[in-house]
Amino acid sequence: MEQLERLGIRAREAETSLRLLTTEKKNQVLHQAADDLQKNARQILAENEKDMENGRKNGMSAGLLDRLALTEERIRQIALGLRQIAALDDPVGEVIGMKKRPNGLLIGQKRVPLGVVGIIYEARPNVTADAFGLCFKTGNAVILKGGSDAIHSNTAIVDSLRQSLKDCQVNPDALLLITDTSRETTRAFMKLNRYVDVLIPRGGAGLIRSVVENSTIPVIETGTGNCHVYVDETADLSMAADIILNAKTQRVGVCNACESILVHEKVKEQLLPVLGKRLGDKQVEIRGDESVRSLIPEAVPATEEDWGQEYLDYIVSMKTVSSVDEAIAHINRYNTGHSETIVTDSYENAQKFLDLVDAACVYVNASTRFTDGFEFGFGAEIGISTQKLHARGPMGLLALTTTKYIIYGSGQIRS
Amino acid sequence: MEQLERLGIRAREAETSLRLLTTEKKNQVLHQAADDLQKNARQILAENEKDMENGRKNGMSAGLLDRLALTEERIRQIALGLRQIAALDDPVGEVIGMKKRPNGLLIGQKRVPLGVVGIIYEARPNVTADAFGLCFKTGNAVILKGGSDAIHSNTAIVDSLRQSLKDCQVNPDALLLITDTSRETTRAFMKLNRYVDVLIPRGGAGLIRSVVENSTIPVIETGTGNCHVYVDETADLSMAADIILNAKTQRVGVCNACESILVHEKVKEQLLPVLGKRLGDKQVEIRGDESVRSLIPEAVPATEEDWGQEYLDYIVSMKTVSSVDEAIAHINRYNTGHSETIVTDSYENAQKFLDLVDAACVYVNASTRFTDGFEFGFGAEIGISTQKLHARGPMGLLALTTTKYIIYGSGQIRS
Repeated sequence: MEQLERLGIRAREAETSLRLLTTEKKNQVLHQAADDLQKNARQILAENEKDMENGRKNGMSAGLLDRLALTEERIRQIALGLRQIAALDDPVGEVIGMKKRPNGLLIGQKRVPLGVVGIIYEARPNVTADAFGLCFKTGNAVILKGGSDAIHSNTAIVDSLRQSLKDCQVNPDALLLITDTSRETTRAFMKLNRYVDVLIPRGGAGLIRSVVENSTIPVIETGTGNCHVYVDETADLSMAADIILNAKTQRVGVCNACESILVHEKVKEQLLPVLGKRLGDKQVEIRGDESVRSLIPEAVPATEEDWGQEYLDYIVSMKTVSSVDEAIAHINRYNTGHSETIVTDSYENAQKFLDLVDAACVYVNASTRFTDGFEFGFGAEIGISTQKLHARGPMGLLALTTTKYIIYGSGQIRS
Repeated sequence: MEQLERLGIRAREAETSLRLLTTEKKNQVLHQAADDLQKNARQILAENEKDMENGRKNGMSAGLLDRLALTEERIRQIALGLRQIAALDDPVGEVIGMKKRPNGLLIGQKRVPLGVVGIIYEARPNVTADAFGLCFKTGNAVILKGGSDAIHSNTAIVDSLRQSLKDCQVNPDALLLITDTSRETTRAFMKLNRYVDVLIPRGGAGLIRSVVENSTIPVIETGTGNCHVYVDETADLSMAADIILNAKTQRVGVCNACESILVHEKVKEQLLPVLGKRLGDKQVEIRGDESVRSLIPEAVPATEEDWGQEYLDYIVSMKTVSSVDEAIAHINRYNTGHSETIVTDSYENAQKFLDLVDAACVYVNASTRFTDGFEFGFGAEIGISTQKLHARGPMGLLALTTTKYIIYGSGQIRS
């Protein structure tokens, strides 16, 4: 704990010094950091190989090993990511809504960094540079706690980035890595609310739950997505099938992929056999209610548990409903507040769905896969918030800022 | 816990039904609720008398008894508060920044209720109606947990409000009161993150700390204010003294009152004797460093603890500094992120103070006492946030809303 406190104090000090940097200076640092990562690629790859070896020894799955692996090309991509962040507009410093009060006070909200950001993530070393870039661009110091599986890779990347900061005469404590990856240290980190302004977990549902339950630092929940596509009775059925195929199969391991399909009973006879065939061609297992199974014989019975499941796999649950209201009620009961789509040609049902479905992103006639900072035009993404406070949906640079009121007076006192 | 879960489920159901109410309907309910509170004044006063009697029996301080007491006039004020909320613009439903993406998707952010708001507060029955009014106007269901000292008053007020909801054909579970005021129930309430979207504690530092440490529901921290006035070397000293007197003594028990004064050493000989006299006339005890005590003989020695203290009393700490930088560093070390003022005629130092002081509200040449939703022109206030996520500074109706992305497509899929 004492060691963590010292880290916290160092991050706070760095944060204060970051407030003085111009956007020009921050961009210079980001370009330098990108150059240095590519220059240091050989060392970084050697350290990554240690993690890979451990991973293989410990029986890590092929999918996880792929996420952990770095290559020259991936390091080039990571460096490119930092250059892209440099190219984005700096949101810090903007003053919003400045107005004069009747007593002459001029009051406005100035956009400022959050301060110190904590990020807890799993075995994806690319997050290390990415999180630094986004936090640094917005003037935040960042404390990273990566997974033990990627500790060598993360340390090598952080060493390179901190050296770039030093070379640019910036306090290198703008980026700190917790190298002790024990569970106790992680728990203690979550209690560091005196020094850390926000904690963002990036990883699976278990990690996120643990952070929500244990953190005294304000948390931004990201990621879990039990996303639905509802096909209304008035839908263009070929559009519906295309959207479902895209939302389910374009990439299955991501939070904005479709996990559950609702079909209005009036179109089930036309649509379900087509869906059964097309999803089957893509090796998607369908878990359906009785009505679905009567039209898709390959479907297996869905259990109550299936409706709340985020599979992240070639599996989908499927159900028929008798109205848009039933669809909305089902979604609001089982969803995780991520992304939901209605396919419809009814103006009334489209508006109702947009109004009543409780989620970060609600679509009419489009794939849920668009829920993404880049697709939304933010040029970057720190995660997708599924909570309601502060930021909801894809989070770009703005989500890493807060505001403070600045007030210009001329001697006003309150009577 | 089971009972609390049932409350949570009822609040969620009510929340869903509130989404369908028009602003007109919500305003009608608020007026009805105001009328009914005045109509039921006699019963409410009788119940309040029970709380007062218990308070007197239990040796409650005069200050707390005064906060607990209701009168015909106070009930009239509470009803007036509801009518004022009815008169405010409804922020729900506004769509912000709707733009067309290159692929034709039309993406915008719609302002929506947070959902279910939890409020934990102490013995101030006026908060009961006030919190209901603000939450209801923004389409939120609210679960209240008031102090045991005010349980009879709160129950009577809630009964009246719920009856008004029923009479207007609105689900009365839009307002729920936890009547079991035990510590265990309070703790369990803080874990109700499945049903409650945000928890707002309103009360003393102890209550707020307990909520931050125990809640799994996202919290908005409110209230603690160790506010500073810094008098720069170029200050108009008579303006400085007026601002200090106002910030310290206009009302001492509030979070935006000044608790600590910093004076540039170049003006200390002129200013401190005046301050000593004027604060002394108002019975303010001064706790000073050596340099202060050499000019104000009545001042007692300040300890390290004093610099971080929120007195909420006729006490102030006072210190001299040798530069604006020292003042800023001192403030950023000891403040609670509430409200800070510089009195200066230096453009450079004013800008530096606004840029570098880390607080919700940073003033030049004005009293800290203006940090208030009404003074800022919001027409209402749910509290003053001293944290950085979601809302910072005085919170009006907007702070009780979130956004969701709404996306209009025409069959877009991701490639």
